[in-house]
Amino acid sequence: MSASKSSSDNARNVLMDKIVSLCKRRGFVFQSSEIYGGLNGCWDYGPLGAELKKNLKDYWWRRMVRDRDDVVGMDGAILQNRSVWQASGHEKTFSDPLVDCKETKARFRADQIFYTPAIIGGDSHGYVSITESPSMEEEAQQKIRKIQKKGGIKGEIAPLDLKPLTEATAEERAQIPSPNATEPGTLTEPRQFNLMFKTYVGPVEDDKNVTYLRPETAQAIFVQFKNVLETSRVKPPFGIAQIGKAFRNEINPRNFTFRSREFEQMEIEYFCRPEDGMRLLDEWLETRLKFYEEIGIPRDKLHILDVPEKERAHYSKGTYDIEYEFPFGVQELEGVAYRTDYDLTKHQEHSGKPLEYFDPNTKEKFIPHVVEPSAGVDRTVLALICQAFDEETVTNDKGKEETRTVLRFAPRMAPIKCGVFPLLKNKPELVAKAREVQEMLRVHMNVFYDEGGAVGRRYRRQDEIGTPFCVTIDFDTLGENGDETKDTVTVRERDAMTQERIAIKDLLGYLLERIS
Amino acid sequence: MSASKSSSDNARNVLMDKIVSLCKRRGFVFQSSEIYGGLNGCWDYGPLGAELKKNLKDYWWRRMVRDRDDVVGMDGAILQNRSVWQASGHEKTFSDPLVDCKETKARFRADQIFYTPAIIGGDSHGYVSITESPSMEEEAQQKIRKIQKKGGIKGEIAPLDLKPLTEATAEERAQIPSPNATEPGTLTEPRQFNLMFKTYVGPVEDDKNVTYLRPETAQAIFVQFKNVLETSRVKPPFGIAQIGKAFRNEINPRNFTFRSREFEQMEIEYFCRPEDGMRLLDEWLETRLKFYEEIGIPRDKLHILDVPEKERAHYSKGTYDIEYEFPFGVQELEGVAYRTDYDLTKHQEHSGKPLEYFDPNTKEKFIPHVVEPSAGVDRTVLALICQAFDEETVTNDKGKEETRTVLRFAPRMAPIKCGVFPLLKNKPELVAKAREVQEMLRVHMNVFYDEGGAVGRRYRRQDEIGTPFCVTIDFDTLGENGDETKDTVTVRERDAMTQERIAIKDLLGYLLERIS
Repeated sequence: MSASKSSSDNARNVLMDKIVSLCKRRGFVFQSSEIYGGLNGCWDYGPLGAELKKNLKDYWWRRMVRDRDDVVGMDGAILQNRSVWQASGHEKTFSDPLVDCKETKARFRADQIFYTPAIIGGDSHGYVSITESPSMEEEAQQKIRKIQKKGGIKGEIAPLDLKPLTEATAEERAQIPSPNATEPGTLTEPRQFNLMFKTYVGPVEDDKNVTYLRPETAQAIFVQFKNVLETSRVKPPFGIAQIGKAFRNEINPRNFTFRSREFEQMEIEYFCRPEDGMRLLDEWLETRLKFYEEIGIPRDKLHILDVPEKERAHYSKGTYDIEYEFPFGVQELEGVAYRTDYDLTKHQEHSGKPLEYFDPNTKEKFIPHVVEPSAGVDRTVLALICQAFDEETVTNDKGKEETRTVLRFAPRMAPIKCGVFPLLKNKPELVAKAREVQEMLRVHMNVFYDEGGAVGRRYRRQDEIGTPFCVTIDFDTLGENGDETKDTVTVRERDAMTQERIAIKDLLGYLLERIS
Repeated sequence: MSASKSSSDNARNVLMDKIVSLCKRRGFVFQSSEIYGGLNGCWDYGPLGAELKKNLKDYWWRRMVRDRDDVVGMDGAILQNRSVWQASGHEKTFSDPLVDCKETKARFRADQIFYTPAIIGGDSHGYVSITESPSMEEEAQQKIRKIQKKGGIKGEIAPLDLKPLTEATAEERAQIPSPNATEPGTLTEPRQFNLMFKTYVGPVEDDKNVTYLRPETAQAIFVQFKNVLETSRVKPPFGIAQIGKAFRNEINPRNFTFRSREFEQMEIEYFCRPEDGMRLLDEWLETRLKFYEEIGIPRDKLHILDVPEKERAHYSKGTYDIEYEFPFGVQELEGVAYRTDYDLTKHQEHSGKPLEYFDPNTKEKFIPHVVEPSAGVDRTVLALICQAFDEETVTNDKGKEETRTVLRFAPRMAPIKCGVFPLLKNKPELVAKAREVQEMLRVHMNVFYDEGGAVGRRYRRQDEIGTPFCVTIDFDTLGENGDETKDTVTVRERDAMTQERIAIKDLLGYLLERIS
């Protein structure tokens, strides 16, 4: 079992490597400032990645804001007054436990280091530690086998008892080696490291001028709650939605774009009466699951974690994590949290400004409760790519088997909706007609004109970036094989690779129906 | 003449106050973290502002990226490797001259303080200084008149000779008072203050981990030039477009959202052969001017400044500033600059990575030259609002004159495209029909349902936020006045306030034609 687990871990790593490589090769994602060696935890989206991300954000905005009467948008600044982060508790408590390895100078998050006693033949032989990963059990086993071999120790290895370093006693910690060192005792005591990036507003770098890059978009919504309430003719239950960048000075950015230092969030704070909180929490979970299906992430690849009370924020009465089966493990895409009236109460206390709502019907005054569906843009983009990625063996024009790489994006998410190809690039009539078709379509969708190489190769290039349809203009289109096929084109579908003959006049309708 | 200038200055201030007040009252723009006293130079967009800004950005992306074969998009990180800012020169030279007033503790940009000798009756009476503004001549005159009065000095005031403080000699500076103080010599020597916000990546705040919030989006494009070139099947001439936040630690943020510390840019770096630079500079100017017309900013409100050589960046062979007549003066919306090969050359030097293009046709290798149209999102949003703002006297239903406030947005920019009103809210059939119309339209455009108050008042509320069309569902719609008007609605147009009867089945087409 351990061998098969290990080989499946290996397959997952290979898959992830292929995805990362495709992202770079086709311009979805580049390392930020790559020519200068990059900046750990920061990524740039290339031409196709930028389109994919924009499609996701636009669709979220459409479904969550414009399609609803009860949600309005906002777009707040990344830099807020420091008091916001004092009131929200971020300045005091938004931190991770940091440990250093004195031997190798590596830095770890203590809760991402796991340790186990190495018990061989019933005797204790110290501890081993590894960093959290889907393959960490196997890695720990290997380390213990190494101890066994090196020491020539006989006997069975006892079942592992992996626990996070944060649970180790001081005595244990002295005996636990760092994950990348051999001698025990090289790890420092965990210390709390605040994850907010600090900066100074104005010319003087003193305490008075400190502020932070926002670590989440939510607080800008809470502090503008009253302004929105008073200017937008909304009343509870209603939501304020926002998409924007947030920053966390992660100790260990990892898993490609999944855990990065700069990222984007799509959040709604939904304000309601206290008694409706639990019901709305469940409703929002359903709404959000439906959204993921609409963008092409099937329900059976999503896990819903009903976060147990002791792992929830202390003020939350209920939280669901919506997780996706990434190649590197099941990981959170979105949190749907019932935050009670915690945030507004804190801001009312700290600002001295009333943040209550007066209900004209019941004559009650109350601080609204909040349900928050908070999704990661970059994580969802990555999930879209992982979900779409496929390789299959197909037989090419010459009867040879080859591997077809295809991104099976839901058409509404695809960066390019339609490729437009003249059969040959040296026939001006074909080129002119193809350009005409391109101009007709591009007002309504993102199209890509390509005249280079055999049509089969052009299909493959579009398959690899997930373009759902390709249109070829050939001699039939020009009417050279009779009136029946004149002004028709071949439409080739990405997934089934089927081809249909469609009249140009019907083409826009045909495509619009399938991409929106 | 001076009196009339002063009264027109006053009118402009009143106008700007009205615009700022409308922006707050109707949820276009709020002060960032307002409940905590704000953060100087940072602004949040409320529900309508967020929609307006999104419409602008989306339209720019459509026209500049998706409609063109020669431009691709990207979306780079705000945090880049520090080397980017060393190579670009920002770390060394991206600064403004800062002066402090020792008496009042106020801070100024030295180039925004203007001074003139006070010469009365041919005798010198020291200097006066004011901060740059459209009314600064008048303000300087007043200060001199005050000196005259106070000292009982006879004679004519000589014509002013206003110059920026940066041009003052050390001797002069000792005699120039601060703009908000009376005694001379309270201003410090100007010192260079770097405008980049500094922060640290990772847990240790040492020099090695310094980086900055990007002060412009352009550099992310330059450093990814090669990646985009190699992955996107583009070749010069081609452009890379990007929309994103940038940050400048301005000494004196001012003019509402115009000069803020956090702002958004829409930039294209257009790469070309050296010999095409000057021609493309002029082409891009035209393309961009056309864009402003398309979003509702008429050509005659735009000024084109052909920036003289001594005021251009030293590497630029030509720069146009596109300026708009804001109420607070003629100010820059966009710069269109021919930057030569300066940026790519600098990054090639500093990174050691070749950033040349090899032309397979001519077999030449060269560093492309760059033309950069760089527009401010927030400034353009503000221009859209200033341009749209209008007040007119109209006669209301009761025959009384009243002031109608209306934002005459180009329909494609309007936050809400169509108001949908049931004539009465207590007639379920009217409400049901209105909801039906709303659902039909909202898939295609942003609509707002309103059933509160008289229809005339609902029109006014929509006028004030710039909604180009309002649709009213009345008893005619229900067929109560015969078959001829059954299933028709009243469509009221914002600017002319004309009303038309349109069949519901034709409504979508009618509106789409007018809003896209």
